[in-house]
Amino acid sequence: MPEGFGLDHLPVGVFVRDGGAPLVGVRLGDGILDLATLDTGVDPAVFGTGSLNAFLALGRDAWRSVREAARAALERDASELVPVSSVRMLCPVDPPDYVDFYSSIEHASNLGRMFRPDADPLLPNWRRLPVGYHGRSSSVVVSGTPVRRPLGQRPPGPGGGEPTFGPSARLDFELELGFVTGDGPPLGEPLPIDRAEDVIFGVVLVNDWSARDIQRWEYQPLGPFLGKSFATSIGAWITPLEALAGARVPPPSQDPEPLPYLRAREPWNLDVDLEVALAPDGGAETVLARTNARGLYWTMAQQLAHAAANGARVRAGDLYASGTISGPDPGTYGSLIELSWGGQDPVALDGGGERTFLEDGDTLVLRGRAGSVTLAEVAGTVLPAPDAR
Amino acid sequence: MPEGFGLDHLPVGVFVRDGGAPLVGVRLGDGILDLATLDTGVDPAVFGTGSLNAFLALGRDAWRSVREAARAALERDASELVPVSSVRMLCPVDPPDYVDFYSSIEHASNLGRMFRPDADPLLPNWRRLPVGYHGRSSSVVVSGTPVRRPLGQRPPGPGGGEPTFGPSARLDFELELGFVTGDGPPLGEPLPIDRAEDVIFGVVLVNDWSARDIQRWEYQPLGPFLGKSFATSIGAWITPLEALAGARVPPPSQDPEPLPYLRAREPWNLDVDLEVALAPDGGAETVLARTNARGLYWTMAQQLAHAAANGARVRAGDLYASGTISGPDPGTYGSLIELSWGGQDPVALDGGGERTFLEDGDTLVLRGRAGSVTLAEVAGTVLPAPDAR
Repeated sequence: MPEGFGLDHLPVGVFVRDGGAPLVGVRLGDGILDLATLDTGVDPAVFGTGSLNAFLALGRDAWRSVREAARAALERDASELVPVSSVRMLCPVDPPDYVDFYSSIEHASNLGRMFRPDADPLLPNWRRLPVGYHGRSSSVVVSGTPVRRPLGQRPPGPGGGEPTFGPSARLDFELELGFVTGDGPPLGEPLPIDRAEDVIFGVVLVNDWSARDIQRWEYQPLGPFLGKSFATSIGAWITPLEALAGARVPPPSQDPEPLPYLRAREPWNLDVDLEVALAPDGGAETVLARTNARGLYWTMAQQLAHAAANGARVRAGDLYASGTISGPDPGTYGSLIELSWGGQDPVALDGGGERTFLEDGDTLVLRGRAGSVTLAEVAGTVLPAPDAR
Repeated sequence: MPEGFGLDHLPVGVFVRDGGAPLVGVRLGDGILDLATLDTGVDPAVFGTGSLNAFLALGRDAWRSVREAARAALERDASELVPVSSVRMLCPVDPPDYVDFYSSIEHASNLGRMFRPDADPLLPNWRRLPVGYHGRSSSVVVSGTPVRRPLGQRPPGPGGGEPTFGPSARLDFELELGFVTGDGPPLGEPLPIDRAEDVIFGVVLVNDWSARDIQRWEYQPLGPFLGKSFATSIGAWITPLEALAGARVPPPSQDPEPLPYLRAREPWNLDVDLEVALAPDGGAETVLARTNARGLYWTMAQQLAHAAANGARVRAGDLYASGTISGPDPGTYGSLIELSWGGQDPVALDGGGERTFLEDGDTLVLRGRAGSVTLAEVAGTVLPAPDAR
């Protein structure tokens, strides 16, 4: 049995077997329990819709009873599971909305230093609220999906001139930890921070692929758009929050103290060890960075309470991602733009060669582990851009 | 029969009658033809899903054959229609993604003058690409839905100090023209500009409600988030592009010439007269502005081709909005922040009183007309904010 997928974990995902209809399953080791075959007390139709959205809409009581029914069944008999190797995994959620935050102070400071070298690296709002933006829901894909290098407008050179259209020359990854939700209150009603974790179903690793040249040219004044919207990869299995009870740690202290709507009674972050590795086409893997999610400045509950503070609805299947998770040292940076410091300092690969940004054929893998729980990895291989017109 | 809903129009919407299941209908005058009662040649199940998304996924050939079948049936007999007054309209689409552009050069210049008074009002990218960002799909609501004034972080005063949390004091509207789509190419394949109009089903008026204080404080560097995500109102009826064939006009010339992926063989804008009116609680209506969509710098086809240039998917039910439509003169500005010039010059109301920004109880109505075709209006009344914690 692979480490990290024991009875204490039981992540949930959507799979297809032999080209059949999509099914919802719970993973134990190398096997999958098909939830439609189990008396879970919930309408089995929710497991046949092709994503977890309908299941997530049932809310926490149903999540708990399904988890308990699955655990009990697996304790009795785990000999008849569907082999993970025999199925194709689908994207576990079809996010009605996808929000990406910017919650690592080290990452935000690094980007600020690169993009605004003459100013304070953190803008005045950064320590006051979890800065975030809406990403493109239809570009959220499951681990294993190849990622085509995007075409787009690349900025004029430093000496001026014209923008050009063609393949991004600065394709990057972003190592993030996300969460998916059930339904929150109706439109117009804020979600109080101490109810946020009733709505958070579980967590998933996220690679927010980024085209830095496109992003840099387009992002003022309305934020990232095509530099991010071509692909966002997530793990195939959502790890329920219950499985991470032992990974809760106090978050870093916040200065200044946040406004009351962002103050939780018992704030927590998750102690998740993270790593990102790159393997060139046919080559050996190099671990580019190792970091941990426990140092994130803004917590998941703060992210969600902020996103819903204006009465915006939180819907079942929504995806909220942390933003790039970087630590204080270069070996802990969660993106190539930081690891190569804007392309100035190439990163050496173990098998020879180096990278400033991603090349066609590169496979990028994100991994995460919290004690005995292994998060589902997020892998993706870069395909060449389509022909530019 | 109300003007503008004749046989040449036939907009499509989703309605509920007597608390029954949602139905898809075509509007003629004050009546609705229930499409499930008609032999349209398409699976009637697509009309029972609660939104137009499933119908839009069928593509242009089906859109055309349904329109032709509806027109033929209505020409034969329009005596048995469902009265518009007897139904409740639902939001016509459940947008998988919602993108808002910034395509009026007058609006972008006005905002630039206010927000960056010492710099060129247009940023260097503005004339090179249709600047846009992703909005919140779950906040898209149908005309008539009340809009609760959002809570949020308001910026520190000009002398410094702390941000505060509470009701937005600068609630605004934005007068926009949007379009909804069918499905585009698979993820990773751009949508060429000359195929854009195969994917555009029809147009709808959009009010992109905006909380200017929240927006101003949060928007750097990742763009608008909670200042926009609390509500976006759209018309209840989508006007098919076919009904606007006579409204096509050449767009303004663009300088510099756009890159090839943004050059259409036959570029067009829509000659739609627009107006926005405000009525205080129980008071008379004042027309705040009159303008026209024909002057938009970036066309719908350019907006869509740009949004899909990086291989992002366009999905059935997606909503793309123009951004605020302003003309050159104050009486043509499509937002209160422009009409009151950042709150400095209150706008007088016909029944007495004045406005810099919206007050609780105000009803705001957007209207549009293209020749004999009246676009469905977008109305919304401002409700007081919920209690701040």
